[in-house]
Amino acid sequence: MSDNPEKYSLNSGKVASATQEWLAKRGVTREAIAELVHFLQKDYFPDLTQEDCMVHVDAVLSKREVQNAVLTGIQLDILAEEGKLLAPLQDMIKHDESLYGCDEILALSIVNVYGSIGFTNFGYIDKMKPGILVKLNSKDDGEIHTFLDDIVGAIAASAASRIAHRKQAEREGVTTPPLD
Amino acid sequence: MSDNPEKYSLNSGKVASATQEWLAKRGVTREAIAELVHFLQKDYFPDLTQEDCMVHVDAVLSKREVQNAVLTGIQLDILAEEGKLLAPLQDMIKHDESLYGCDEILALSIVNVYGSIGFTNFGYIDKMKPGILVKLNSKDDGEIHTFLDDIVGAIAASAASRIAHRKQAEREGVTTPPLD
Amino acid sequence: MSDNPEKYSLNSGKVASATQEWLAKRGVTREAIAELVHFLQKDYFPDLTQEDCMVHVDAVLSKREVQNAVLTGIQLDILAEEGKLLAPLQDMIKHDESLYGCDEILALSIVNVYGSIGFTNFGYIDKMKPGILVKLNSKDDGEIHTFLDDIVGAIAASAASRIAHRKQAEREGVTTPPLD
Amino acid sequence: MSDNPEKYSLNSGKVASATQEWLAKRGVTREAIAELVHFLQKDYFPDLTQEDCMVHVDAVLSKREVQNAVLTGIQLDILAEEGKLLAPLQDMIKHDESLYGCDEILALSIVNVYGSIGFTNFGYIDKMKPGILVKLNSKDDGEIHTFLDDIVGAIAASAASRIAHRKQAEREGVTTPPLD
Repeated sequence: MSDNPEKYSLNSGKVASATQEWLAKRGVTREAIAELVHFLQKDYFPDLTQEDCMVHVDAVLSKREVQNAVLTGIQLDILAEEGKLLAPLQDMIKHDESLYGCDEILALSIVNVYGSIGFTNFGYIDKMKPGILVKLNSKDDGEIHTFLDDIVGAIAASAASRIAHRKQAEREGVTTPPLD
Repeated sequence: MSDNPEKYSLNSGKVASATQEWLAKRGVTREAIAELVHFLQKDYFPDLTQEDCMVHVDAVLSKREVQNAVLTGIQLDILAEEGKLLAPLQDMIKHDESLYGCDEILALSIVNVYGSIGFTNFGYIDKMKPGILVKLNSKDDGEIHTFLDDIVGAIAASAASRIAHRKQAEREGVTTPPLD
Repeated sequence: MSDNPEKYSLNSGKVASATQEWLAKRGVTREAIAELVHFLQKDYFPDLTQEDCMVHVDAVLSKREVQNAVLTGIQLDILAEEGKLLAPLQDMIKHDESLYGCDEILALSIVNVYGSIGFTNFGYIDKMKPGILVKLNSKDDGEIHTFLDDIVGAIAASAASRIAHRKQAEREGVTTPPLD
Repeated sequence: MSDNPEKYSLNSGKVASATQEWLAKRGVTREAIAELVHFLQKDYFPDLTQEDCMVHVDAVLSKREVQNAVLTGIQLDILAEEGKLLAPLQDMIKHDESLYGCDEILALSIVNVYGSIGFTNFGYIDKMKPGILVKLNSKDDGEIHTFLDDIVGAIAASAASRIAHRKQAEREGVTTPPLD
């Protein structure tokens, strides 16, 4: 915030809180994402609770690259819902056109932050559509979540990658967290 | 288009022609992109003309992945120009915030179609900003091209990659074009 | 090939044929990859035959980016099998260490060539491991296919993407193939 | 290491120390990478010292994805130098064939960890070849650094991205580091 309205200055706190708010407004809770993470990791770590998963979801959501992708994707979904995009983009996003892949691209940019081991989980969850992903994909209610369903899957896949890294550190008795 | 207005069916021709139109409306001609390609490749292929480059630009623009990225990026630029995005996304795109990287992500999805050899050219041209890229980056005139400048650089880098592949085929006397 | 043995000149034909040979030697036939493609696409295109799929597998394999990834991945698998890599890389590749992701990275470079719509299929098939992928993953026989299993999944996912693009063109009655 | 020689267990400390050792053996010091980072960032942050840059280089090198790419790339360079790869891969890596892009792919997997804002710096430095990059590219001495030159550029670009993120945090007076 600056006294001079023309002077732009990034406010990271606002970007972070907008990410949380926009997800909530679009019906995606941290709990729902944690449930997806649990779905992905429960067979590997039987003791893992949904509570544990939530810690990792929060860490993923604290990354700016993730926040940027969430805000951009939700914005496009909302504009498509309101019919405010120009044709033919409006139609492709509204109908989640199978040859339109910019939603997967933004999702991949999230997965990349935690490394390539997340690709498989992203693709798997995107195809299986457990939990919240079914709801985001039902086109019945007039809501459009072309970007958000991929983004939520990517956040879950990233949190799963983070768990894999941390569990290894625990196994080796490493107590100092890696540098960010 | 179908008799049933509710029935969606992708019209690829419309996506392709919208790509050309939107680029033109935003001040980017095929000639301007061909000039960037020439800038990138002239030292390697001294006989290469800007006319030659245009053929490759057209080929890149005929790819649907490229069209999707062009339309999505330009749409976000236009909406930012009109002040229709929600804060804080509106501010980040309007000011081409350096920690906002979704523009680079869409650009990379273009480069990827012609393979990893284009990454270097993309980064180089994005930093040097020759030709049309200077104009797209001047924020003086109230126009916002946060996405478009990266996208144009990516199209040029992709066309340069395509030239490298074709020149190799010529050198080896291969006459049948590779399968798409 | 040049008269001067010191003078290097890429021979694309040799790269292409080596790709076919190395895949065959490592037990991966075009038929086996076509079967994976069929697994991925049969629900969407009930008339699709495995023969049809093979055409698309061949097209994917004709791309140099794909050939580069195949040769590099198989080479690393072979060297790991022979115990010729340096520790700790030798151990990570030999044991397909879950935190080692360079195999997924090479695979993704294949998927990227046909665009982001292939990410989901890649992740799905990599997790489900149908057909040849089971065999490539069984560590019983002393063979190491840490890279190859991901690469084969990526080729299949890419061929599936190519089918999706072509079927759309057929639906729209487009007869001229897109430029490469 | 385990009492049972057959039992594999990842030792993260060994992976990290091998990364440092292999870089050193191939002639790449932390100082040389820090110099590249300084080259990329000095215009934006005039007070930045090479010492400061080294902290960020170390942080990048502490990431496992980065370590994996470093070890894999250097291993391929060494094997090419010893003539132990199979033709035609041996020739392509030995001669840093311009249509061979797996080196750029591994490099990009490093850049991705710090987000898309690093792409531009990677491409730029790879083209300009300041400092240690000239030496890695001179093919005079029989050494082959086809992978390493891209990898070193990617580490520098990633460190530059990390600096951009941290400087923003400082500007906003954020004192708690983001979660990893």
